[in-house]
Amino acid sequence: MSARGAGQASGEDDLIARYFKPLATDPGAFGLVDDAAILKGAPGDIVVTTDAIVEGVHFLPSDPPDTIARKALRVNLSDLAAKGAEPAGFVLTLGLREANDAWLAPFARALGEDAKTFQCPLLGGDTVSTPGPLTISVTAFGRVPSQGMVRRSTARAGDVVVVSGTIGDATLGLAVLQGRVVASDAPTRDGLIARYREPQPRVALAMAVRTHASASMDVSDGLAGDLAKLCKASGVSAEVRLADIPLSAAAKTVLAAKASTIAALIAGGDDYEILCTVAEDRLVAFRQAATSAGVSLTAIGMIRSGDEPVRFVGEDGRTVALARSSYSHF
Amino acid sequence: MSARGAGQASGEDDLIARYFKPLATDPGAFGLVDDAAILKGAPGDIVVTTDAIVEGVHFLPSDPPDTIARKALRVNLSDLAAKGAEPAGFVLTLGLREANDAWLAPFARALGEDAKTFQCPLLGGDTVSTPGPLTISVTAFGRVPSQGMVRRSTARAGDVVVVSGTIGDATLGLAVLQGRVVASDAPTRDGLIARYREPQPRVALAMAVRTHASASMDVSDGLAGDLAKLCKASGVSAEVRLADIPLSAAAKTVLAAKASTIAALIAGGDDYEILCTVAEDRLVAFRQAATSAGVSLTAIGMIRSGDEPVRFVGEDGRTVALARSSYSHF
Repeated sequence: MSARGAGQASGEDDLIARYFKPLATDPGAFGLVDDAAILKGAPGDIVVTTDAIVEGVHFLPSDPPDTIARKALRVNLSDLAAKGAEPAGFVLTLGLREANDAWLAPFARALGEDAKTFQCPLLGGDTVSTPGPLTISVTAFGRVPSQGMVRRSTARAGDVVVVSGTIGDATLGLAVLQGRVVASDAPTRDGLIARYREPQPRVALAMAVRTHASASMDVSDGLAGDLAKLCKASGVSAEVRLADIPLSAAAKTVLAAKASTIAALIAGGDDYEILCTVAEDRLVAFRQAATSAGVSLTAIGMIRSGDEPVRFVGEDGRTVALARSSYSHF
Repeated sequence: MSARGAGQASGEDDLIARYFKPLATDPGAFGLVDDAAILKGAPGDIVVTTDAIVEGVHFLPSDPPDTIARKALRVNLSDLAAKGAEPAGFVLTLGLREANDAWLAPFARALGEDAKTFQCPLLGGDTVSTPGPLTISVTAFGRVPSQGMVRRSTARAGDVVVVSGTIGDATLGLAVLQGRVVASDAPTRDGLIARYREPQPRVALAMAVRTHASASMDVSDGLAGDLAKLCKASGVSAEVRLADIPLSAAAKTVLAAKASTIAALIAGGDDYEILCTVAEDRLVAFRQAATSAGVSLTAIGMIRSGDEPVRFVGEDGRTVALARSSYSHF
């Protein structure tokens, strides 16, 4: 861990020693006292992904520190899982306005718990002061056999489009927190907020994705926009049946009350589910592997040849136009 | 490159395609169209280091974008070199207030030039919007033979303390920019500012460090504080002859004019030189290897047993007390 600043055991060094050293149990982390960490060489490839979360952009200033820690790591674990990679470790860059014990203690504790749960040890990092919003940048590493990473550019016409879990809960959770959607009851409300604050990365599905998927990515910016990206990268199109998109009971309740629309749910971000394509003759085996991993899968459409925009088809068989397909920062 | 946001070819996707895709020539980068990158497996270890730079903290708002790009990458290359690692690639997280072409074009161009010069290709990254100061976080990868990383905790009593290049120029460059020090002439002024804005990472020295050094780190927070850290990690002390600390002609001019002090130079940060320890019988061979690599080395003291603070000895043989040994963020 590079302690930019603090020759004495104070300031950053002290902060790192107190909160993050206990997490650095991997031998490659050298207890965070060195300038760099070691990722052991191995015959396969190392998958590298990096995602930053910024206060006020990716999480709310009012979000509890433990949920912020989990989100920072999990959005990266979600990428690794979608690529078919098993987690191998991560490095962290914390941009803090101040060294605040009441915030850092639960943040570090939750990060350590997640690192253990997902077998993704903290290897190193950097702590910098910033006058701006709290910023947490994670670079995570995963392992796949040589050439084993599942890309987003390899979908083929005729493949089935599959998505894990349920779609739209996180965007509803954010809407509830911001008062734009009112949930009918406390469990619905809490469930949706939890999906926004604490993504559930499909790490358990990594091996099945690697074995069966022809192309894969995670859904972070909205199903509609992310599927468009996968199709563009693969040089294909797709057709999705809106009625088949998997929704939670909570999301169904909100839609039934007309408090949101399916179009908003598939354009909203932060699902952190896996969106992948599978050859039809692999679908049964893929489902079995997912069931063993405890993750639900839903076939929502088909990959088509051509480069037309993805078609979303309603129950009446007509194409539904979407006003907005995903979230953009700029 | 994870384009968090932008389902259409606009916003971040467009920004990434325009400025950063041309840099992603390594096959493991997949042209930045995937969610993750690949670092090829190899028999040795992968050294991982991460350092972020923040506007107003590590660089000035007035610094030109090309120098900011170089600093962001080079502070990480400096860490790799100090660990004896050859660069293998890096990922970038850019926290931007706005997508500003006039800033991004020279930033990306300089980053690409440095990536080529130092053979450290861009593998991927993330672009996020932030209301706060410009923040650039880099995670860099290097390769060493298995167990080959040079640590900071392995210095032994009797080893010679060696430093590359010259010390104190960067801290004087910052002082000049801030009007705290007035340089006697334009070349002195420009030379010092260049050392602050554009570190010269000692990448060429990596193999020599790996072959000969017993312990090593880079000098980023000030020679005095960084040597104290190395000694603490190694469980040793050290004695340094102030008169032997290598200074540039520009720094000597400033000291001769009494515009700064040697104490300020060894407590100031941003040198990005290599500080290492070498067994006495290795010193000649280490010097030869450094000469071949085109980097100057200077022996400045000795490692001593014990855990006393590092002693800085003046020309009269007396210990000089330092008011402050390095920079701390918190």
